[in-house]
Amino acid sequence: MIKKSPLAPNSFPKLPIIDGVRFATAATGVKYRDRTDVMLASIAAGSTVAGVFTRSATRAACVLDCQSKIGGDTSRGAAILVNSGNANAFTGVAGQESVSRICAAVAEGLGLPVSAVFTSSTGVIGEVLPDHKITKCIGSLTRSMHSNAIEDAANAIMTTDTFTKGSTASVEVSGKTVKISGIAKGSGMIAPDMATMLVYIFTDAKIIQSELQTLLTDLTDSSFNCITVDSDTSTSDAVICAATGTSGVDVTRNESFKKALGHVMLDLAHQVVKDGEGATKFVAVEVTGAASDGDARKIAMSIANSPLVKTAVAGEDPNWGRIVMAVGKSGATANRDRLSIWFGPHLVAEKGWVSKSYNEKTGATYMKQNNLIIRVDLGLGNATTTVWTCDLTHQYIEINADYRS
Amino acid sequence: MIKKSPLAPNSFPKLPIIDGVRFATAATGVKYRDRTDVMLASIAAGSTVAGVFTRSATRAACVLDCQSKIGGDTSRGAAILVNSGNANAFTGVAGQESVSRICAAVAEGLGLPVSAVFTSSTGVIGEVLPDHKITKCIGSLTRSMHSNAIEDAANAIMTTDTFTKGSTASVEVSGKTVKISGIAKGSGMIAPDMATMLVYIFTDAKIIQSELQTLLTDLTDSSFNCITVDSDTSTSDAVICAATGTSGVDVTRNESFKKALGHVMLDLAHQVVKDGEGATKFVAVEVTGAASDGDARKIAMSIANSPLVKTAVAGEDPNWGRIVMAVGKSGATANRDRLSIWFGPHLVAEKGWVSKSYNEKTGATYMKQNNLIIRVDLGLGNATTTVWTCDLTHQYIEINADYRS
Repeated sequence: MIKKSPLAPNSFPKLPIIDGVRFATAATGVKYRDRTDVMLASIAAGSTVAGVFTRSATRAACVLDCQSKIGGDTSRGAAILVNSGNANAFTGVAGQESVSRICAAVAEGLGLPVSAVFTSSTGVIGEVLPDHKITKCIGSLTRSMHSNAIEDAANAIMTTDTFTKGSTASVEVSGKTVKISGIAKGSGMIAPDMATMLVYIFTDAKIIQSELQTLLTDLTDSSFNCITVDSDTSTSDAVICAATGTSGVDVTRNESFKKALGHVMLDLAHQVVKDGEGATKFVAVEVTGAASDGDARKIAMSIANSPLVKTAVAGEDPNWGRIVMAVGKSGATANRDRLSIWFGPHLVAEKGWVSKSYNEKTGATYMKQNNLIIRVDLGLGNATTTVWTCDLTHQYIEINADYRS
Repeated sequence: MIKKSPLAPNSFPKLPIIDGVRFATAATGVKYRDRTDVMLASIAAGSTVAGVFTRSATRAACVLDCQSKIGGDTSRGAAILVNSGNANAFTGVAGQESVSRICAAVAEGLGLPVSAVFTSSTGVIGEVLPDHKITKCIGSLTRSMHSNAIEDAANAIMTTDTFTKGSTASVEVSGKTVKISGIAKGSGMIAPDMATMLVYIFTDAKIIQSELQTLLTDLTDSSFNCITVDSDTSTSDAVICAATGTSGVDVTRNESFKKALGHVMLDLAHQVVKDGEGATKFVAVEVTGAASDGDARKIAMSIANSPLVKTAVAGEDPNWGRIVMAVGKSGATANRDRLSIWFGPHLVAEKGWVSKSYNEKTGATYMKQNNLIIRVDLGLGNATTTVWTCDLTHQYIEINADYRS
């Protein structure tokens, strides 16, 4: 049994009801016993839906299906169905047929066009999805929809997750309140581009689809695309945002709304890293002074993905030499003699050498914290970035060396 | 105590003496107790020396020094000094000064110009090298040089290695025998570009420096640049080849010699992977049918570096879904529905789905072997490549989560 991540928040946050969105869950037995494994969300007529998906060349059938539908007409409403336990990825024509049958059943159950039904599947790759187990539950799902069941929905979509992930924000626009509630799953196969996981965000804001899509794509770059657990990219990643418009508040190009949505997305992204398989440390990698944005990202991701850096963090070893190594291997422009490195507030190295003010004991004490900041200044330019990662521990090996049996 | 790799060869090979090359070792106490940690090789007048080095932007001082000297005059002979326990990397001006002092001491001891003395350092990064411990031993080293001490030399340069690495080949050219003897160290920070480790190869062949350099660079691409243990690139990698010419046989553009040298380099590269930190499986990743050489390499390295693939191998789990994932994330052109995957002789997946002839038991039995072949055919073109990797185990975490203490 996998223990709950030591980085988990104390409790699931209180997520406000979003008018126009209802949820139901079921235990269909796709793979797991004694737990829910399907969630259905119905989204009211007049809503807009945006989505961002994995760039994997071996995307799952449900991802390809979503991508073909996003941007279409959802004026009669929409639905999202997610199953856990089976990713329905690399299952050939059978995979596409499963998606079609599930979408048809949901469309019929909720009185929607098939083109407004989005699905995700998460779990093992390469096994045929027993979709009949899902479709036969659609009737009972549609009869049990509730507006206050978002936490149940978040539970049903978990795989190797050790805690349920949710986040919320609200924002005042023209004297009225706009609410955002989001849920996520994700623990392994969390990788830079695009960061894994399934994420569903609901808001009662009013915004046309093309504007919502732009917003979601932009904000994904600075949230889900800035996290990594193991550098592995899922076949099934999806971030879907539905705006019901039920608040009556138009948030088009509203900076406060953008900030609030960005907050929810970054919070969910951080929760995914904090539930990274085997994680015991949450690490922000900050790069400053890089010659270009691309270089800043290359260096940050090189550090965040380095097994030697991640095992040093696991061992609470202030091994800054491995950070130098990761900068050096990144392929970005770096000058050894201009490089500075900090562990939190502690200047560790500068001008190509250990700092005079640094002593190993300070570093070792700092590394005992659960939340760490590793900062590298290249001394070359003005580009900066921050990415988030976790440590690499025995438990990662335990979880992944025998995941399927 | 780290156990010997289960993939280690039964014994160190019998390496023939190369006329014109002599070795000595010493226990200088740079870091380790009760073992040798410095090797000195002297190379006869008239030899040529070629070298290939890490492309890291944070290269160690000794690497920069070697790079400035390779291609220079070695007509009066040359020397290679290597210490283990301290990499003398990221040690600022002090690092350069250490290299200068060591080179000066070796040059004086052997009556060589400083420009013909090459050094390497391997071990922890960021600590000042106590070079006085090395320089004070130069006198006794130069007095104890032997032509039959190459195995001692190979022992002295080890760090986290669990076995001593050597390889040999000989080739008949114009009725005469040309001999090649090589040694290597390497276990962690073994990465694609350029694959880690320290490698020293000696031959009695006669060949001008520029031809030897071209040969070494070419053959490195298909040997040391095709292996990965943990995707981390060392600051200190070096492959140095010295040709003494003592056989009197000119091997310029001789294909048999190239083949023999390539054999030694690939054998040493494989030994490094077999001693990969924590390795219990040796895995050849073969990619065929790729659209381009670059794509073939991207896909092969994406599979070989994937923590999820490597942990599945560790768990003897024929989890081909993770191979699909690694193909998908590589950034190379791939078409899910043309992809085929084999575990050794067993066709696992074809045309975007599990093969009809495959059953899980066959795969699970195959994965129990120590030597595995994972083959992926893209079905797109004619480009092929093979790279070598190992599994990711608990012992990798053990070795690296507390390497310095």
